[in-house]
Amino acid sequence: MLTAATTDAALRLALDEDAPWGDLTGATFIPAEASARAVLRPREDGVLAGIEVFTRAFTLTDADIDVEVHAVDGAAFSAGDTLATVTGPARAVLRAERIALNFCQRMSGIATLTRAFVTAANASRPADDPVRIADTRKTTPGLRAFEKYAVRCGGGHNHRFGLSDAIMVKDNHLAVLAGQDADVTAALRAARAAVGHTTMIEVEVDRLAQIPAVLDGGADIVMLDNFTLADLRSGVDLIDRRALVEASGNVTLETVGDIAATGVDVISAGALTHSVRAIDLGLDLDLEVN
Amino acid sequence: MLTAATTDAALRLALDEDAPWGDLTGATFIPAEASARAVLRPREDGVLAGIEVFTRAFTLTDADIDVEVHAVDGAAFSAGDTLATVTGPARAVLRAERIALNFCQRMSGIATLTRAFVTAANASRPADDPVRIADTRKTTPGLRAFEKYAVRCGGGHNHRFGLSDAIMVKDNHLAVLAGQDADVTAALRAARAAVGHTTMIEVEVDRLAQIPAVLDGGADIVMLDNFTLADLRSGVDLIDRRALVEASGNVTLETVGDIAATGVDVISAGALTHSVRAIDLGLDLDLEVN
Amino acid sequence: MLTAATTDAALRLALDEDAPWGDLTGATFIPAEASARAVLRPREDGVLAGIEVFTRAFTLTDADIDVEVHAVDGAAFSAGDTLATVTGPARAVLRAERIALNFCQRMSGIATLTRAFVTAANASRPADDPVRIADTRKTTPGLRAFEKYAVRCGGGHNHRFGLSDAIMVKDNHLAVLAGQDADVTAALRAARAAVGHTTMIEVEVDRLAQIPAVLDGGADIVMLDNFTLADLRSGVDLIDRRALVEASGNVTLETVGDIAATGVDVISAGALTHSVRAIDLGLDLDLEVN
Amino acid sequence: MLTAATTDAALRLALDEDAPWGDLTGATFIPAEASARAVLRPREDGVLAGIEVFTRAFTLTDADIDVEVHAVDGAAFSAGDTLATVTGPARAVLRAERIALNFCQRMSGIATLTRAFVTAANASRPADDPVRIADTRKTTPGLRAFEKYAVRCGGGHNHRFGLSDAIMVKDNHLAVLAGQDADVTAALRAARAAVGHTTMIEVEVDRLAQIPAVLDGGADIVMLDNFTLADLRSGVDLIDRRALVEASGNVTLETVGDIAATGVDVISAGALTHSVRAIDLGLDLDLEVN
Amino acid sequence: MLTAATTDAALRLALDEDAPWGDLTGATFIPAEASARAVLRPREDGVLAGIEVFTRAFTLTDADIDVEVHAVDGAAFSAGDTLATVTGPARAVLRAERIALNFCQRMSGIATLTRAFVTAANASRPADDPVRIADTRKTTPGLRAFEKYAVRCGGGHNHRFGLSDAIMVKDNHLAVLAGQDADVTAALRAARAAVGHTTMIEVEVDRLAQIPAVLDGGADIVMLDNFTLADLRSGVDLIDRRALVEASGNVTLETVGDIAATGVDVISAGALTHSVRAIDLGLDLDLEVN
Amino acid sequence: MLTAATTDAALRLALDEDAPWGDLTGATFIPAEASARAVLRPREDGVLAGIEVFTRAFTLTDADIDVEVHAVDGAAFSAGDTLATVTGPARAVLRAERIALNFCQRMSGIATLTRAFVTAANASRPADDPVRIADTRKTTPGLRAFEKYAVRCGGGHNHRFGLSDAIMVKDNHLAVLAGQDADVTAALRAARAAVGHTTMIEVEVDRLAQIPAVLDGGADIVMLDNFTLADLRSGVDLIDRRALVEASGNVTLETVGDIAATGVDVISAGALTHSVRAIDLGLDLDLEVN
Repeated sequence: MLTAATTDAALRLALDEDAPWGDLTGATFIPAEASARAVLRPREDGVLAGIEVFTRAFTLTDADIDVEVHAVDGAAFSAGDTLATVTGPARAVLRAERIALNFCQRMSGIATLTRAFVTAANASRPADDPVRIADTRKTTPGLRAFEKYAVRCGGGHNHRFGLSDAIMVKDNHLAVLAGQDADVTAALRAARAAVGHTTMIEVEVDRLAQIPAVLDGGADIVMLDNFTLADLRSGVDLIDRRALVEASGNVTLETVGDIAATGVDVISAGALTHSVRAIDLGLDLDLEVN
Repeated sequence: MLTAATTDAALRLALDEDAPWGDLTGATFIPAEASARAVLRPREDGVLAGIEVFTRAFTLTDADIDVEVHAVDGAAFSAGDTLATVTGPARAVLRAERIALNFCQRMSGIATLTRAFVTAANASRPADDPVRIADTRKTTPGLRAFEKYAVRCGGGHNHRFGLSDAIMVKDNHLAVLAGQDADVTAALRAARAAVGHTTMIEVEVDRLAQIPAVLDGGADIVMLDNFTLADLRSGVDLIDRRALVEASGNVTLETVGDIAATGVDVISAGALTHSVRAIDLGLDLDLEVN
Repeated sequence: MLTAATTDAALRLALDEDAPWGDLTGATFIPAEASARAVLRPREDGVLAGIEVFTRAFTLTDADIDVEVHAVDGAAFSAGDTLATVTGPARAVLRAERIALNFCQRMSGIATLTRAFVTAANASRPADDPVRIADTRKTTPGLRAFEKYAVRCGGGHNHRFGLSDAIMVKDNHLAVLAGQDADVTAALRAARAAVGHTTMIEVEVDRLAQIPAVLDGGADIVMLDNFTLADLRSGVDLIDRRALVEASGNVTLETVGDIAATGVDVISAGALTHSVRAIDLGLDLDLEVN
Repeated sequence: MLTAATTDAALRLALDEDAPWGDLTGATFIPAEASARAVLRPREDGVLAGIEVFTRAFTLTDADIDVEVHAVDGAAFSAGDTLATVTGPARAVLRAERIALNFCQRMSGIATLTRAFVTAANASRPADDPVRIADTRKTTPGLRAFEKYAVRCGGGHNHRFGLSDAIMVKDNHLAVLAGQDADVTAALRAARAAVGHTTMIEVEVDRLAQIPAVLDGGADIVMLDNFTLADLRSGVDLIDRRALVEASGNVTLETVGDIAATGVDVISAGALTHSVRAIDLGLDLDLEVN
Repeated sequence: MLTAATTDAALRLALDEDAPWGDLTGATFIPAEASARAVLRPREDGVLAGIEVFTRAFTLTDADIDVEVHAVDGAAFSAGDTLATVTGPARAVLRAERIALNFCQRMSGIATLTRAFVTAANASRPADDPVRIADTRKTTPGLRAFEKYAVRCGGGHNHRFGLSDAIMVKDNHLAVLAGQDADVTAALRAARAAVGHTTMIEVEVDRLAQIPAVLDGGADIVMLDNFTLADLRSGVDLIDRRALVEASGNVTLETVGDIAATGVDVISAGALTHSVRAIDLGLDLDLEVN
Repeated sequence: MLTAATTDAALRLALDEDAPWGDLTGATFIPAEASARAVLRPREDGVLAGIEVFTRAFTLTDADIDVEVHAVDGAAFSAGDTLATVTGPARAVLRAERIALNFCQRMSGIATLTRAFVTAANASRPADDPVRIADTRKTTPGLRAFEKYAVRCGGGHNHRFGLSDAIMVKDNHLAVLAGQDADVTAALRAARAAVGHTTMIEVEVDRLAQIPAVLDGGADIVMLDNFTLADLRSGVDLIDRRALVEASGNVTLETVGDIAATGVDVISAGALTHSVRAIDLGLDLDLEVN
């Protein structure tokens, strides 16, 4: 789902940003004929994401670099594991190193955090009825495809990609309807008639009383925003499988288990991507001058 | 230093990523003629960065949007302050909202963290001899100019922009020299003769014994990497103003004060940008249908 | 839903393709100070689509051109109507003319054909239960957003935009499952668990016997591909509102009414976009040399 | 004449448009290791154009795809022929399929129509004095090079590529000259002196009386626009080989033979490209899971 | 003929190349609110070209800059003349200055040299039968449109823009024909039948004996390459107005007059663009801090 | 330092500019299966630069072209030497030829001129204390990286790449300071405190009296602009190794030796790049039709 076109475009931008007119240090201190062997090793435990982006950063810089990958995206790793081995011209390896790490560290950070959310959330759920942890649009500008991919590597699910692929009716939209004395149910039905038949309609509500009209309107998904745990449970009961139930708001590693226990289908958390802590990955190099 | 060209390019990418074929919800639920008034308010205290990027996200989406800015980049704000007021066509305001926030929240997160580092570091320094807090190349791919700008907004300083604008000799480069039985001093002098006269040369060392040869080679800056506090003090004494002294490695809000107290000139910290916590900024909207 | 960014990008490409190093004829025969007034008039009846693209072709070429629009997208027009009036520097008007027409003629061709399909299809349907006419991915490379927009102008609906925003399981996918001795129902349930909760799942079947397993798998939409009218009716009965029913294959203006009468919810037709007949629109010019 | 750069750019745009963040269905239903063998077969007779674009759509998506081509552009084919065989990773074959077909179907549609025009036109001409069928600027925005190439595949000829590579004086330009009381002959001579010596000058006239002044001005080509057959014959006589004679306006498969019989050198027809009917090409797939 | 799209694209590239992350000096030393007034003055005599590119360099950098132009492209200027006045924000004026000059100096250098060639060539020609001075494809990569425009500003003419807009048969092509025992006349006639009717065919010969076959083939232009003056005269006589005659090879300011006197129609000279001496233009600034 | 990304981008632009819709002549006169062997030979003596760009022009046009290089950048060559051998499909070789030469001829022109300056300058210097010849920002728009690389090939040094990588305080900046009654020394110290610690600060002065304040301000480099030889000597004495000394203004092959003899460290000359005379390189082709 992370296409080669997307990966190459982002890498080109990043490589050019870092070295628009080359690597002064490498050109000065590293003989052109020197070769390098580098090993990717985490300095802490985590979940891997972005190993193909890591790989491509090197091969895009120099097609003579060879990257051998020893782990797959989504796999848990421990500090000190050998995740990949990079061999090739030393100048090119050094030039691509930081960019390869900048991608893979952030992506693995997201995957690791997502895995923690998924685990914490499902501690309180039966094995055959897991809750979904979903991302949001609070992603880093320009890197959404990478971050949503990393969420999947961590066992999370993707919410809509953006504004173009699903309907999400929020408080502001409802306020406009209210300002027009419009009927929410009728508005939702009209929307259903207007949009494509492959388009889901989700409606965000902030109190239980809004739910019946939304269900009558035929929403596919109801998002309960910033509900108390008690209200979440009431919401789940009230909706009674007529729509998917998504909980959102104040979702942390501490609260997610209790939220999951209310029986909601999906829990979405901006924290998965809006505040990424990069996983500490190191590249240990052996350079040799032939 | 954040050029209009850079800002527009990144915003175009982000806006297109979020809504490649428009905002389905806005087109369905918001009348074309509705207008909106939105107020940017932080939900927590922090330091502002990116207010012009925030502004441009709206005006690039629709030139009919007007953004009035009430605070400048670098200013501290408190939860609840009014930072900007956005007025214009409701559909366009809603379409740009998330992207405007995604930029400004991350940039303000960096500025806020940098300010904390600067404050913590200088608690132990005389007012007329402050230490610099500097960023690194551990930035988000594609957004380096934005993140380095945010570091400046927080009172930090920028290290080199990338591989093309300064020499940074690291352990790997020294290892190559050693592998060739090369003399570090001679290598540094040769490098000085080779590179442009506006190019600084920095050398990273990981023990005190390496310093004399580096100074003899004429390094402009010596980076003491992962030194103990005692060794940092010895390094500062040994270098004795013949080069700038930069400390790096294991720099946290807890350690930075002690590091600063050793008398180094610069402290560089990857943490400023590699693990950004977005500041919680909200956009409160009033929509009205004319 | 046709964003300004999309419109501008396609227009820039087209204008550059037509006149990479300017208009030789205009530069030679038209005085720089000459101004033009041009009127957009159809030579045949139809449905308008792309009037804003038409407009933007001129203003992007020269911001001094003014375009007054007298009709809206989706409106029916008759031969000889005045749809828009263009005034401005003659050289620029002549340079943009062909590109403006090339877009608007094709888009109006699609809208006009779609309108005909919608009308023919619904002749046999009750007014309160219209059938949808939907497009496909058989669009002109690079112009999908324009063509899907034109379908909407004609009263049609959009199918998924592309491969990234909905699941469409076709015969090839089912064949792979069969080749693995996989259970379709189980495969669909696994897919539902894997993909985002805002993603619709549609399954294409080519005989009635496939339907029960697909419904058990929880498909949102079942596409009956190349079914006879009798089988379409049986399919509608069998599905019995548990999923949306889409008919496809051999959909023409002649057949669409009968297909609609079977009670399906959606009829998708590649013909809407794969074989566009441009509507004949003319631009009548008055040039004057000031 | 269709360069690799042009082909790749258009394909990249189209592939990205169709699957900006990947193929959800393939990623869910097709095992990563599955391979596919697909055969390109027309469902109707026609003339092939775009087989290299078809090929490149696959290899650009995945370099591991192999395409064996069994027919060349410009060759006539019959329904059921095997035109190409595609083998490679199933996910990638399915992802590229629609885009490959969208290009090749349209291009073959143009080639097929052009061949029909060429045949119809030359039925009435001596074998050693064929008439040329030429395209116009009424091409699909962004795809002109592909469409003009397809015209050549069908045996047609290309008119000027666009505004930059030949002079075409139309009624509007003559009207400006008239409005300035300018002498057409003098204006054409001045134009000849001004433009590059490799630039042809063509003048469009709509009545016989305009021809002498145009010939005196030294036009290389005279276009007789919307002339009756009788007037076309008179025009050919009047021009008497002093310039090439091009006929234009109301050119259809029904009229083109009679127009050709008047002795004109070139017949240009917007219909070749403004209203393309895609040829029905199918890709029959065998997928296998290794 | 230098379109706004071409100008903007080249300027964006150049401005970004010069200041990818802003102007460090301006940001440090010039107050944001300072304004500047700058006057464009040549330090030597010459012919102006590129004044609109000069202007656009400033307005593209900052829309608040105003440029008043006092001379037109193609006009001769003397050292010390006032060619344009630039007023606006000082930081932006300083940022754009070098790029504006880099374009205008080179373009004026080309125009000035071309004017010298045109003057020298026509000293020996009757006033009513001037010779054309034409450019070649030996232009600076990426700047061909600018350089061909500058040639026109100097009174020269453009040869074909590139490989796509005219046929130029050179010695290598003739050698291939010879290697195939092909008949040049027949080959040229076949080429005429194959290429578009708006495409000129030029053939380069290096000895008189080649001319008859080329004329029989119907060449529009014959290029006499590296002919002696005597042979040029013989060639002109031999061709006798049946084709345009172009002289090329060893064309300098010293030789061009004699070449022109032989009666050729066109003289093409790579020197116009392959070795540009920039005209010394200065920008005298007055900065003021409001 | 000339990255593959930079090279490819510039070549793509140039190749597309030259042949947007292919090579009409090659497609008409050269059989598709013909192959060519071409040898790069200078027609005059010089210094080589850009041989990899030359090579890449061919391989980017057609991956089947093979280029064997017989000389390295920076090497002196004599007229008639064999610098490279190109073999491959004849159409592609002919299509890339002019672009390959346009780059390599200009770059070699710069390297050759730079070598002449370096030699002339150092005639008067001791072997162990050479003077540097440095370029400026007076480069061809879009080609700065290529031209700065060529300067290095000629033995010159690069000045700052552009506005973003070093501080250069010029007369205009000093005038602003003066207009604010600002103290130059204080301003320089403030600048030092503000900019990154890897950023050099250079100050341009036009009279000796300005030097002490500049040195007190801590400038790394002092540029003496348009000084007499006597004043240059006084400046060198006055600065006395406390900063690097750069001379600029009126630097020609005639003057550069005397300037060097004054003892300055660096001499910068706009002439290296603002007025490039292309070296005459020829490509001798043998074509054969298999």
